[in-house]
Amino acid sequence: MGKVKLDEIDHQILDMLIDNTRTPFTDIAKKLLISAGTVHVRVKKMEEAGIIKGSSLTLDYVKLGYAFIAYVGIFLEKTHQTKFVLERLNQIPNVTIAHITTGKFNIFCKIRAKDTTHAKNIIFKIDDIDGISRTETMISLEESFNDKKRLMHTIFNEL
Amino acid sequence: MGKVKLDEIDHQILDMLIDNTRTPFTDIAKKLLISAGTVHVRVKKMEEAGIIKGSSLTLDYVKLGYAFIAYVGIFLEKTHQTKFVLERLNQIPNVTIAHITTGKFNIFCKIRAKDTTHAKNIIFKIDDIDGISRTETMISLEESFNDKKRLMHTIFNEL
Amino acid sequence: MGKVKLDEIDHQILDMLIDNTRTPFTDIAKKLLISAGTVHVRVKKMEEAGIIKGSSLTLDYVKLGYAFIAYVGIFLEKTHQTKFVLERLNQIPNVTIAHITTGKFNIFCKIRAKDTTHAKNIIFKIDDIDGISRTETMISLEESFNDKKRLMHTIFNEL
Amino acid sequence: MGKVKLDEIDHQILDMLIDNTRTPFTDIAKKLLISAGTVHVRVKKMEEAGIIKGSSLTLDYVKLGYAFIAYVGIFLEKTHQTKFVLERLNQIPNVTIAHITTGKFNIFCKIRAKDTTHAKNIIFKIDDIDGISRTETMISLEESFNDKKRLMHTIFNEL
Amino acid sequence: MGKVKLDEIDHQILDMLIDNTRTPFTDIAKKLLISAGTVHVRVKKMEEAGIIKGSSLTLDYVKLGYAFIAYVGIFLEKTHQTKFVLERLNQIPNVTIAHITTGKFNIFCKIRAKDTTHAKNIIFKIDDIDGISRTETMISLEESFNDKKRLMHTIFNEL
Amino acid sequence: MGKVKLDEIDHQILDMLIDNTRTPFTDIAKKLLISAGTVHVRVKKMEEAGIIKGSSLTLDYVKLGYAFIAYVGIFLEKTHQTKFVLERLNQIPNVTIAHITTGKFNIFCKIRAKDTTHAKNIIFKIDDIDGISRTETMISLEESFNDKKRLMHTIFNEL
Amino acid sequence: MGKVKLDEIDHQILDMLIDNTRTPFTDIAKKLLISAGTVHVRVKKMEEAGIIKGSSLTLDYVKLGYAFIAYVGIFLEKTHQTKFVLERLNQIPNVTIAHITTGKFNIFCKIRAKDTTHAKNIIFKIDDIDGISRTETMISLEESFNDKKRLMHTIFNEL
Amino acid sequence: MGKVKLDEIDHQILDMLIDNTRTPFTDIAKKLLISAGTVHVRVKKMEEAGIIKGSSLTLDYVKLGYAFIAYVGIFLEKTHQTKFVLERLNQIPNVTIAHITTGKFNIFCKIRAKDTTHAKNIIFKIDDIDGISRTETMISLEESFNDKKRLMHTIFNEL
Repeated sequence: MGKVKLDEIDHQILDMLIDNTRTPFTDIAKKLLISAGTVHVRVKKMEEAGIIKGSSLTLDYVKLGYAFIAYVGIFLEKTHQTKFVLERLNQIPNVTIAHITTGKFNIFCKIRAKDTTHAKNIIFKIDDIDGISRTETMISLEESFNDKKRLMHTIFNEL
Repeated sequence: MGKVKLDEIDHQILDMLIDNTRTPFTDIAKKLLISAGTVHVRVKKMEEAGIIKGSSLTLDYVKLGYAFIAYVGIFLEKTHQTKFVLERLNQIPNVTIAHITTGKFNIFCKIRAKDTTHAKNIIFKIDDIDGISRTETMISLEESFNDKKRLMHTIFNEL
Repeated sequence: MGKVKLDEIDHQILDMLIDNTRTPFTDIAKKLLISAGTVHVRVKKMEEAGIIKGSSLTLDYVKLGYAFIAYVGIFLEKTHQTKFVLERLNQIPNVTIAHITTGKFNIFCKIRAKDTTHAKNIIFKIDDIDGISRTETMISLEESFNDKKRLMHTIFNEL
Repeated sequence: MGKVKLDEIDHQILDMLIDNTRTPFTDIAKKLLISAGTVHVRVKKMEEAGIIKGSSLTLDYVKLGYAFIAYVGIFLEKTHQTKFVLERLNQIPNVTIAHITTGKFNIFCKIRAKDTTHAKNIIFKIDDIDGISRTETMISLEESFNDKKRLMHTIFNEL
Repeated sequence: MGKVKLDEIDHQILDMLIDNTRTPFTDIAKKLLISAGTVHVRVKKMEEAGIIKGSSLTLDYVKLGYAFIAYVGIFLEKTHQTKFVLERLNQIPNVTIAHITTGKFNIFCKIRAKDTTHAKNIIFKIDDIDGISRTETMISLEESFNDKKRLMHTIFNEL
Repeated sequence: MGKVKLDEIDHQILDMLIDNTRTPFTDIAKKLLISAGTVHVRVKKMEEAGIIKGSSLTLDYVKLGYAFIAYVGIFLEKTHQTKFVLERLNQIPNVTIAHITTGKFNIFCKIRAKDTTHAKNIIFKIDDIDGISRTETMISLEESFNDKKRLMHTIFNEL
Repeated sequence: MGKVKLDEIDHQILDMLIDNTRTPFTDIAKKLLISAGTVHVRVKKMEEAGIIKGSSLTLDYVKLGYAFIAYVGIFLEKTHQTKFVLERLNQIPNVTIAHITTGKFNIFCKIRAKDTTHAKNIIFKIDDIDGISRTETMISLEESFNDKKRLMHTIFNEL
Repeated sequence: MGKVKLDEIDHQILDMLIDNTRTPFTDIAKKLLISAGTVHVRVKKMEEAGIIKGSSLTLDYVKLGYAFIAYVGIFLEKTHQTKFVLERLNQIPNVTIAHITTGKFNIFCKIRAKDTTHAKNIIFKIDDIDGISRTETMISLEESFNDKKRLMHTIFNEL
């Protein structure tokens, strides 16, 4: 499919943006001894290549009252319903991640809720999607870390 | 612990930054009919309150050569090793998320790797951490979606 | 929902009633150096607030010929039948506790029976409720303790 | 072991006390057309026979801030540690019920906690008891009913 | 239901017959210093009371070409089919024992076959019974012992 | 190993003895139109060949007060302890059958006990055997049939 | 069914062909001090007896771009569909081995694919076969060895 | 690692050899309208590139008295013993395939044996390898097909 070739400069730009997406391009330019225009061009190129898909805030869910995390394993009645069920799951905003998986579950997803009762309602909503025969829920007692920055830095150092 | 009170203006600011963290404050100000300085003050306040913990890029891992995702369930020899094991896991950058969980696993984590062989090496690294007695791995055949923006918008509309 | 505020006096009253619900209010009054009327008012207030929901005897089931305890995990055909199934379970007096649960079961309940044959009949009655697809039973070989008083005392000391 | 013989009068006394342990003996006497002294004698007899082991309040745990219920299955390293482990469990007031069970667990117990974090601490305390090799936790999303009165009435009608 | 009372003489008669059902009554009589008629009367009494249900040979299945033993756990579609399914199982002579069980299976049975292929055919016959949704098979690698005589002697010594 | 060859006469003798081991040889002889001496010789031959290993009574365990049946799956610490553990199991008369099995258990055995408490004690005795790491118990709610005669008749008709 | 009798010469011929099916018969003849014609006759005889069913190349799947191996356990809706489902599986070339099994699965098969996405498509194709209710997949992280030659040599040395 | 480039001629050569490794090169040459020397050169090239690793006979194990197939899942005490255990497994010729796997097992292997008793001995040998804590065995009732030729043809048609 033609992997995009990134050079050393691209990596250093990504390395800085990963830690703070709002870093002004002039700051990046100064550090890398290139022009701000070059930074702009490079970032644009990576966006167009689809490597940078966007940016987002990291919020504190606990402070926002969403302290409850669970993983829900889904058994489908028939696998050809997978696509349909994923679309329905995508309409429930509390389902933040969904995977097609091997092992005993057909689909495996992550939910965030306010508390036990709220989680029950979300799980019931999932259970009621057509094509889902059963679900199993594993509750997180603590999200010990959730940090993709370490991985990103590793990738760019490694490339 | 004192939940921070956010008003309607805060929500609208967050709502815009979630979709694009680089949205200039002047654009936000124009839309909300407030001054850019107010936007700045509000964002600063939310950062100091710990609600905004930072920002990050959303990258396309597949394009970066990291197409392989797995969830690893960890059985500990003794639960009092939980903290120690989590620290060791945190030193493996391919472990992007880790939870303390109920159910059959003590710790449940997510890894990203290049391919099967790379995953094997990461899992072996995890297995070799002192205090871990066994692991079980569930491989993702497809990350169908991974999107917390829908949830964030819901939270702010709801507050 | 407005948690009721209990003061030190309330706690001491509850502390005494927990151990023996028939303790005369005059005895309580004497111990706490308050009037029996005050005890009466306080208890009434806690009843109205719904904190005290009632009182009950602790009987020896073994002596009454009900020595057999089992936990029954229930798999539903569809989760939206949960409420209906719980109502049916509630009509079987041998089902003393029922929970909506996470994990592999949809509903988890406790039954008391006379012996193996009696238990079989109760389980069959449960299995025949519409909407239940399967049950799994775990038999208690001994109820080693069943005592909520220790917890109640802890709660009141802690408040 | 000599089951105590209860007659019709005993059953009717128990039937009334089950619903409200504070029902005055004079009220019971009036209803059953016997003397209050007889009621007193009968209750005393049943207490001495160990049929009535005590009485307790039914409190609303949710209103007291204890909304979180979980069942914990315990695997022991060796079964001869059962008695020792049960004694340690009995020292944790949040463990309200404990059974020796068949099936995959050696001991099965019920805990009540304030919330997820509190539950985590209690489970860690359990995990740290000598002789326990592993635990599995099933979280209640709702205690739909917890009512032994229906059973008690059935027993007395049946006897 | 009125347990039959057996005395010391009965026990000693049973004790001898258990080891060899063909022991002549005159031999038993001689050993116990009673008349053969008494032995006859006692055995008849125990047969009529249903304690002695019959007698049977202990054959060597391996020598008869039936070396393959398996236990089959049966999941029913609905529990009310239990009786019907047991009747069908009873028509398959290779199913020598069947239980209604707790735990994950509804019915648990033992089969004897000639070899793997024969076992497959028997299991398929079981699977095809109406009302059975699934079966799980556990194969015996060796029947290490199958001997109820030790238990019988214990029972009679204990009575 | 040289399977014994049985002819039609042998089968008919076995067929009769299976149903009642005390059938006099003269009755068998009369039915088969052979001499009682021939019956005697044939039975002796089959005993010496090890095909007939003995005979036993079929007793009613429920009437004898042994109504409780359970299957116990045993996990060993190390498989080379199998023989040792089987010898220890064989010393517990309540363990009537034991198999070396495939699947999740190393050894699978059947126990008969008086009631739940008695079963608990037997299971504890099993758990305490050196080399056993864990056991899982499945309790029989009803022994629906236990009859090897149907199989035996089939074998002889088939040979 | 009449096992074919193989003599020492046959074993030695097989022993050589197992390691290299293209070994010229003249080479074999020379080593065994027999004529090439004899080798030819012996091989023909073993082919006609069905002992030698054919020959095949051992290719390096990784070098051919097929690095992904998984085992798929299949649950059928009804066992009488086994034959039908096996025929459908046999039409998917990526399913290289299929077994009818005991234990929790009805059918157990091995698949080879290019990568995770390719495997997903194959598994979906399997899931869509009529009569299959569910599948569970176990992914191989490494095929450490796949070698039947050691066994074949053992068989011939042993015969 | 540099995948070898195969052209149409190579594919057609492989296609023919897969079905019969003994096909004379002159026959292949004639069919493809090339010289036998070219066939020789091409095959040699593919052998040197490691694509063709060898050739082997397809024997009928049932006719050779090896009718028993089982899959054995292995749990290790520690994952760093994987390599050591695989070497030991490789010394048991009845273990024909071994994988490092995800899911509940660390290693998953296939064994061929003569019958149940032989399988028991092989499994015991596996269980006794240092570092193995437990094994679970799934027995094949029938190897319905075992055929990699369909896949190979597909690969070459597809390339």
